[in-house]
Amino acid sequence: MRYFEDFHVGDTFDLGPLTVTAEEIMAFARQFDPQYFHTDPERAKDSIFGGLIASGWHTGALFTRMYVDGLLSKMASMGSPGLEQIRWLQPVRPDDTLYGRLTVIDGRVSKSRPTMGILRLNCEMFNQQHELLMTFIGINYVGRKPEAS
Amino acid sequence: MRYFEDFHVGDTFDLGPLTVTAEEIMAFARQFDPQYFHTDPERAKDSIFGGLIASGWHTGALFTRMYVDGLLSKMASMGSPGLEQIRWLQPVRPDDTLYGRLTVIDGRVSKSRPTMGILRLNCEMFNQQHELLMTFIGINYVGRKPEAS
Repeated sequence: MRYFEDFHVGDTFDLGPLTVTAEEIMAFARQFDPQYFHTDPERAKDSIFGGLIASGWHTGALFTRMYVDGLLSKMASMGSPGLEQIRWLQPVRPDDTLYGRLTVIDGRVSKSRPTMGILRLNCEMFNQQHELLMTFIGINYVGRKPEAS
Repeated sequence: MRYFEDFHVGDTFDLGPLTVTAEEIMAFARQFDPQYFHTDPERAKDSIFGGLIASGWHTGALFTRMYVDGLLSKMASMGSPGLEQIRWLQPVRPDDTLYGRLTVIDGRVSKSRPTMGILRLNCEMFNQQHELLMTFIGINYVGRKPEAS
């Protein structure tokens, strides 16, 4: 189990791979973001995107799946108060294989809850062609080591 | 169809309602965010949240569903480059009925693509007790009126 004290500024963590299909892109979008360039491969060809693309929220959710599997499930995570500066730079397309990278930007002990720390993480998502698809700054509450708090 | 020119600073739009069940919260989380306070109602009682809560990405996706149904499907939307300052202030819990409110913060014509405008929207999500659950600033590309561009 990785606690707040186990993270240091500049630490990086590689995530993935995770492959997403056209069916998954459309299933998410039918439920949450039914715009035609997320749900209709034929009509999507005439959009500014030139084909089917994943919803931005699906893209974020896919990053989160890689984050949970690769790191968060082994961390004393206590949730997140939010995110900063999501940028969808290039879309996720059918059969893309996704990768993620986390870099620790800073961390501090919570003033109101001294048993936990607050980490800020630079989050990047790439595809199989090493194109940068999405960036954001994640904020994570992380429990401190039992002997530290 | 609502174009860029049809939006003015201070305009507000009410969204919802949309009710979310425990089964939906768990189904999303099993796929994208399998942390126990999103997937296991019994274990979640012992978490800092005191019970099952929706993933933050699910919360954002639910807002998006209300946005698409209430406004985006009637807008000349051309996608979004990103979001700012997501804050999860209170969690979404099983059987919550959700509402949204959008407020236009500012808008400008794109320099690189003069056929579209860029809107910034203050986005708020509430529950049935009028508690503010989530805020963020959305950025939307919107087509200009055919005669304007």
